Amino acid sequence: MTHPAHSTRDRLVLNAALLFRQKGYHGVGVAEILAQAGAPKGSLYHHFPNGKSDLALAAADWASAEMMRIIGDAFDAAPDFATGATTLCYKLAKLFDLSGHWDGCPISATLFEGPQNDAFRAKSAALFDSWIAEVARHGQRFGLGAATAKDAAEMLLMGLEGAWILARVRKTSDPLRRLPGLLGHQS
Amino acid sequence: MTHPAHSTRDRLVLNAALLFRQKGYHGVGVAEILAQAGAPKGSLYHHFPNGKSDLALAAADWASAEMMRIIGDAFDAAPDFATGATTLCYKLAKLFDLSGHWDGCPISATLFEGPQNDAFRAKSAALFDSWIAEVARHGQRFGLGAATAKDAAEMLLMGLEGAWILARVRKTSDPLRRLPGLLGHQS
Repeated sequence: MTHPAHSTRDRLVLNAALLFRQKGYHGVGVAEILAQAGAPKGSLYHHFPNGKSDLALAAADWASAEMMRIIGDAFDAAPDFATGATTLCYKLAKLFDLSGHWDGCPISATLFEGPQNDAFRAKSAALFDSWIAEVARHGQRFGLGAATAKDAAEMLLMGLEGAWILARVRKTSDPLRRLPGLLGHQS
Repeated sequence: MTHPAHSTRDRLVLNAALLFRQKGYHGVGVAEILAQAGAPKGSLYHHFPNGKSDLALAAADWASAEMMRIIGDAFDAAPDFATGATTLCYKLAKLFDLSGHWDGCPISATLFEGPQNDAFRAKSAALFDSWIAEVARHGQRFGLGAATAKDAAEMLLMGLEGAWILARVRKTSDPLRRLPGLLGHQS
């Protein structure tokens, strides 16, 4: 899937994000990203001096911004936290269905390269924490205390990561759709 | 870490399991596994005709048997489901601490190779389902109805997968230790 409307840098980031989610960081070669992005070989190091690892960090940032948008879409219009949480789960279930029932979490598929890569680890932590903080912010907006909102946000995100894994192996978004009920957000 | 007391086949499986958990399926080469296992090159295809992919399936089976043992250890002596669930989370937190705060889930790190590998996907589903069924069996033993036990088991396993991911990026087992409280298994 190439996106000729974007700049070369944007095409590299977008296609890297899609490929990493599908095959993991080590499962994707630079040549494959360049081919899918329709980008010349020299463009990678022009835009990303450290090559594949810089590209992975940019891809995770891009995917994380998408996730923040989805969190906002789910919670902004919700009447309460439980409805927002349920809508978020359903939105991600729909995304999973569109992905062909395989794409991984954009953070763990892209940045879990190994224990030695502390730049990847620190970036993962920062991005996950930004998702949790954003969900917690909505919780507080709905009247939850700070600690309760943080707990609910962290549990929701952990549940989503786990449900996503189960969805992949079962080739169905059911675990993501069942999650709100299992977490007590649905009666 | 080599284990000279075991047979060559066992050493290959054990070391493959350890390496895959740390670096993921695509992050580990056959040469690295052979070296760490102290095994001659020919031994891989002697024991595993399809090489690395056969070895990954055997490694996941081995790690899953360990997980089943840990589930049994946690629940067999427990007075109720909530205590068993809490003990399981703490046991895995301890394991995570011992792993140097990085090793991944033995199933998802080893068998999430890509959407085309249906043997890996089907094996992952079967192993996860065996964990869920075992926890649910304990739930029923403690008097939960079949559907409630299945829901509790599935939520616990999804929570553990998600908490494990958060533990990796934060380099602390705290998310695993907080999970029982977040799931309402601790007062």
